[in-house]
Amino acid sequence: MKLFNKVVIIGVGLIGGSLGLAIKKKRLANKVIGVFRSKDTFLKAKKRKAVDEGSFDLSCVKDADLVVLAGPVKTITAHIKLIANLVNRNCIIIDVGSTKSNILKSAQKYIKNDNIFVGCHPLAGLEKRGVVNADSGLFEDSICIVCSKNKPNSKIISFWKHIGCRVITMDAKRHDRILALTSHVPHVLAFALVNSVPKDFVQFIGSGFKDTTRIAASDVEVWNDILLDNKNLVLDSLRNFGNQLDRLAKAIKKNNTSSLAKLIKKAKTKRVSFK
Amino acid sequence: MKLFNKVVIIGVGLIGGSLGLAIKKKRLANKVIGVFRSKDTFLKAKKRKAVDEGSFDLSCVKDADLVVLAGPVKTITAHIKLIANLVNRNCIIIDVGSTKSNILKSAQKYIKNDNIFVGCHPLAGLEKRGVVNADSGLFEDSICIVCSKNKPNSKIISFWKHIGCRVITMDAKRHDRILALTSHVPHVLAFALVNSVPKDFVQFIGSGFKDTTRIAASDVEVWNDILLDNKNLVLDSLRNFGNQLDRLAKAIKKNNTSSLAKLIKKAKTKRVSFK
Repeated sequence: MKLFNKVVIIGVGLIGGSLGLAIKKKRLANKVIGVFRSKDTFLKAKKRKAVDEGSFDLSCVKDADLVVLAGPVKTITAHIKLIANLVNRNCIIIDVGSTKSNILKSAQKYIKNDNIFVGCHPLAGLEKRGVVNADSGLFEDSICIVCSKNKPNSKIISFWKHIGCRVITMDAKRHDRILALTSHVPHVLAFALVNSVPKDFVQFIGSGFKDTTRIAASDVEVWNDILLDNKNLVLDSLRNFGNQLDRLAKAIKKNNTSSLAKLIKKAKTKRVSFK
Repeated sequence: MKLFNKVVIIGVGLIGGSLGLAIKKKRLANKVIGVFRSKDTFLKAKKRKAVDEGSFDLSCVKDADLVVLAGPVKTITAHIKLIANLVNRNCIIIDVGSTKSNILKSAQKYIKNDNIFVGCHPLAGLEKRGVVNADSGLFEDSICIVCSKNKPNSKIISFWKHIGCRVITMDAKRHDRILALTSHVPHVLAFALVNSVPKDFVQFIGSGFKDTTRIAASDVEVWNDILLDNKNLVLDSLRNFGNQLDRLAKAIKKNNTSSLAKLIKKAKTKRVSFK
C-alpha cells in the first residue's frame, strides 16, 4: 500500500537503513531517497539496497511527502533546523531518535509552516550500528512509541503499523521517563560494570557478565547524546536504581537472610514474567 | 579413562547433574551415585540418566573414592561436616560451589583424616536450575578454578581436564575476589535493576534490558548463600562499581561531553574485546 510518494531518510544507519528496507519491502512509498554525508556510507547503503537513490544534499527533501530523521539525537535536532524551510507544506516530518522531549521542542521552534512533525521511537535496536547491519525485519512485532503535541497523525500511525509495529502514543516526557529506566540506565550500568573490571579478571568473565554488559558495546556518539539529552530523567532513574541497590547492599551487610531472599525473589519473579 | 571407581555426587541439580552426565559420557568412573533429599529429584535424575544409582543416605559415601559436593554454598558446608567421618581414607572430596574461602575453611576444620579436599569452581552455569536442565557439555571449554591449601591434587586436575575444562589454580581469596566482581556484583545489579522497574513500564522493556537482567531470574537460595558467604568482597566490589557509576553520573550531571564520551568509549573498547 503506497502511503507516500517520496520518502527521504536523513541518516541511513542501522535504524534509518532498516526503515528504508522495510518501506521498500512493504511497498509503502514510490521512492526512498537516502541523504548521506559520506560516499562510503552511500555505497554501503546502495549495496544493502536500503534506499533507491542517494543524495548528498539536504535540499532533496523539497518534494518529499515524508522526511525521516534518524541518527544520534544531536544530529536529528541539527537536521530539524536545516530542513525546516526546505520542505513542502504537505510534507510530514518524523524522527526515530531515542529521546523525545528536546526533539519535539526543536521541531516546535523551527518548523513553522503547516508541516506536521511526529516524534517516533521504534523500540528496536542493536548494539551494532551502521547500514551494514540493517534488517527489514528489525521493527517487526516491536512497539513504536509516537509522541506529538496534538492528536497523533493517523497516516504516521498507519505507517508504523504497516512496518509491523504496535503503536503506543504518549507525551514526550513520559516516553523519556520510561526509556530512562528501561534503556538509558541499563546502558550506564553496563558501561560502569565493564569499566570496573581489572584487565587480569577478564579471562574469568562468563556468560552472565557478558549478557549483562552486551549493550556496553553500543555506539559512543549515540549514547553520549542520549544520556546528555535525557540528563535529568537519567539521573533520576539512576537514583531509583541506587535505592534498590542500597536495599540489597544493606541486607548483605547486615547478614539479613530473609530480607535478602525477599529482594532476590521479587526480582526473580518479575524477571521471569518478562516475555 | 577410569580415574575413579565409585563417584558419589551429593546435590544432583544443574551442576551436579551435568557433572554426572559428563563423568558417565567420558567414562571417568565405574559407577556414579547420586545422593538425593527427595524422591522427585531422584526420579528426574534417573530419567535424565545423570547418575547410575540413587541413594537417600549419606553413608553411601563410605566406599567412594571421589565425593562431589554440589548445591548452594550453605548446603555444601553442611555436607562437609556430615560426611567428614563417613569417608574412607583414600577418598578425595571436592566441591563445585560458587565461593571458596569459607568452604575451604569448613573442610579444614571438619575433614580431619588424610582425605584430600579440593575446592573447585567450574565457571559454567545457567540462570536455570535443576537436573532437568543438566547437560553433559555444560563444562566443555570452560575454565575450572581449583583452590587448595597445598599443592593442587594432580588427579583432580586431570579429572577436570577430562571433563573438558581449562584448569586454573589460585588461592581461595583471589577466587572470591574475582568472582565477586565478574559474577556476584552483576547479579546484585540485575536484581536491583529489575526491582526498580514500575509495573507499567514492563511492556516497554526491550532486548537490551532483558539481556542485562537475564541473570535476575537465578535461583533465590543459591544467590542468597553466595552473596552472604562472600559478603565483604561483594560489598567491596560494589563500591568499585559505584565509583565507576559516579564518574559516569558526574559527567552526565555536568554536561561533560568529552569526559562522558571517554568513559563510554573505554567501556565499549573493553567490552568488544571480550571473546
